[in-house]
Amino acid sequence: MDNFNFYAPTYFAFGKDRESDCGKLVKRFGGKKVLIHYGGGSVIRSGLLDRVKDSLTQESIEFIELGGVKPNPRSGLVYEGINLCRKENIDFILAVGGGSVIDSSKAIAAGTVYDGDFWDFYEGKSVDKALPIGTVLTISAAGSEGSPDSVITREDGMLKRGASGEAYRPKFSVLNPALTQTLPAYQTACGITDIIAHLYERYLTNTENVEVTDRMIEALILAMINEGPKAVNNTDDYDARANIMWGGMMAHNNSCGVGRTQDWTSHTIEHELSALYDCAHGAGLAVTMPAVFTYTMKHNVMRFAQIAVRVWGCQMDFTNPENTAKAGIEALRSFLCSIGMPKNFAELGANESDIEKLAYTCCYGDGSGSGKISGFTTLTQADVEAIYRLML
Amino acid sequence: MDNFNFYAPTYFAFGKDRESDCGKLVKRFGGKKVLIHYGGGSVIRSGLLDRVKDSLTQESIEFIELGGVKPNPRSGLVYEGINLCRKENIDFILAVGGGSVIDSSKAIAAGTVYDGDFWDFYEGKSVDKALPIGTVLTISAAGSEGSPDSVITREDGMLKRGASGEAYRPKFSVLNPALTQTLPAYQTACGITDIIAHLYERYLTNTENVEVTDRMIEALILAMINEGPKAVNNTDDYDARANIMWGGMMAHNNSCGVGRTQDWTSHTIEHELSALYDCAHGAGLAVTMPAVFTYTMKHNVMRFAQIAVRVWGCQMDFTNPENTAKAGIEALRSFLCSIGMPKNFAELGANESDIEKLAYTCCYGDGSGSGKISGFTTLTQADVEAIYRLML
Repeated sequence: MDNFNFYAPTYFAFGKDRESDCGKLVKRFGGKKVLIHYGGGSVIRSGLLDRVKDSLTQESIEFIELGGVKPNPRSGLVYEGINLCRKENIDFILAVGGGSVIDSSKAIAAGTVYDGDFWDFYEGKSVDKALPIGTVLTISAAGSEGSPDSVITREDGMLKRGASGEAYRPKFSVLNPALTQTLPAYQTACGITDIIAHLYERYLTNTENVEVTDRMIEALILAMINEGPKAVNNTDDYDARANIMWGGMMAHNNSCGVGRTQDWTSHTIEHELSALYDCAHGAGLAVTMPAVFTYTMKHNVMRFAQIAVRVWGCQMDFTNPENTAKAGIEALRSFLCSIGMPKNFAELGANESDIEKLAYTCCYGDGSGSGKISGFTTLTQADVEAIYRLML
Repeated sequence: MDNFNFYAPTYFAFGKDRESDCGKLVKRFGGKKVLIHYGGGSVIRSGLLDRVKDSLTQESIEFIELGGVKPNPRSGLVYEGINLCRKENIDFILAVGGGSVIDSSKAIAAGTVYDGDFWDFYEGKSVDKALPIGTVLTISAAGSEGSPDSVITREDGMLKRGASGEAYRPKFSVLNPALTQTLPAYQTACGITDIIAHLYERYLTNTENVEVTDRMIEALILAMINEGPKAVNNTDDYDARANIMWGGMMAHNNSCGVGRTQDWTSHTIEHELSALYDCAHGAGLAVTMPAVFTYTMKHNVMRFAQIAVRVWGCQMDFTNPENTAKAGIEALRSFLCSIGMPKNFAELGANESDIEKLAYTCCYGDGSGSGKISGFTTLTQADVEAIYRLML
């Protein structure tokens, strides 16, 4: 196991009606004037936004609002939020929504207290300082409610990039599984797929002897396999959603990913799809993961065989472990299909003719990239093209 | 899943040589004058104490020392520490040792800033305020390095009791697996047993539909089963010790125990043994757990069958699940024996003639107890006596 630091000081208020604690939590973490950041009308229609505002008012906390965050959140709204926060002397950002809203909130939080362009953080600068952030989560997926990460799409060139840093860990997160019961089955399944991807990206490591984190990752995938279909088939299943919500946070707060190299090539390759086609990130991952794993499997057949046996219940083929490794990838693909995820480019709305462009942007970005993406293995543009072709 | 709060803001510096960061970490968390609290001579002989002091000196942090903590730490030294901290205006406590040293440090930290007798916290008062605490862990076992808990033995009556509260979470913990390589195999095994007990105590719940935490607990036990014997059979196995160290922390920071009722009757019943005979807590648990589980199994046979199948690899007996449940308990007992733990009263140095007294103290304490202990099931003095008899 490699040396590491782990620091996850987010306060989680988990369960039914916990959004009523927002005011007290903002106060506890020093907020006096809040920007409430959210997406579309669903948090208004459901009454959630009003409940959050009531909770702030009860603690005499001032607030203003900025809605309009879209999936694959854009830089334009981030700049707007930064200007608003500076003008209004905001000292706390409260994200009410899913990963996109939280990630946009993080970008605003960092940009508000930074002299330069916030995009610097999405080009590799570490986020050491930001306004404090709280979240009220409405979809289990991105894990941003407990992570130091954020992903933003820059409209100029539709570049989708991530940033990370200690200041991006929320001070608190309200996790009320009931808030996710209004989600359609498709979005629920996209979230589950994203969570499973966060786990696979950590599982595919080149660090040896990492049994404890291997087992933790396997445990969380097993929980998703058990609880995911329940939530997709019955959107009212509170307990299934509760298991998924805590599992989704644990999958990405990195307690199961410490001390080991991680992969993240599936995310990198998928980001080009959701940036170009504006498809759901989870749906893109469902198509991307089996292709990436099939392509990189030979780098460490036994690792894929291990997850196949321990998680997917495949029989070990001791004569030819590659058969077991493949069976595990097929089991993942079947599971994702069973919860309604797309399985190829066509179902995703992606075009074969874009593959060269996708692979180029993936490896070179706006021209500043190295031409390679690295994780479990190192992939060139030709490799990435081949992977996209496996998705046809 | 029940509603819950989870807040674990401990900074973990994990890996080789990380004790050299102590000075920076104390500074980061506001310490200016430190009490270094430790046990016997091993931290002196190994040079660890000197390295910690050097690290503090490099950051110009003042410190004084208080050694002498014994296993099953006593109230007498806690009072001494409290007086010392007040006299010397100490503002940070640095525990260098295992669970006993950390628990003693926590008691001193709370007692120093409390007007009454620190023992109030060990009779049920919540610990809301304490001096900040840091730890340099030297044995994987108690999980106190990441938990809000502390257990102290009061010399008057040899009462062993626990206290808990948010202020008891360490600000930072240095987890260097190499520091545990000097431990004898027996102590290593005691630690592994304690970790497994922390997991079983959370597993035995009356809350339904807690798949995600069930899976996480199973994962951590599986990691102990895989890594434990490696560390016991080869004390120099750094990787095994690293897996155990992170797993031991995760087992008790409660991320795998949230939103569910927990048991803790094995700990309660064992505490009487280590208080009376001063045996190692882990050794006491090795004898106690199989007895408690055998006695309470019928309360929920399927829960014991589940852990038997998922963790111990037992075949499910679909005609008579009780056979599977029993096989799981036997597998646990065999595993603990295989790493050198005692299996009965005699091997532990306990006496049959003490059973009535042990059960009385367990249920009534110094006379103030309710006569019952509750967790997975509710046990009377007669039940506890019967459980002790199963250990003969």
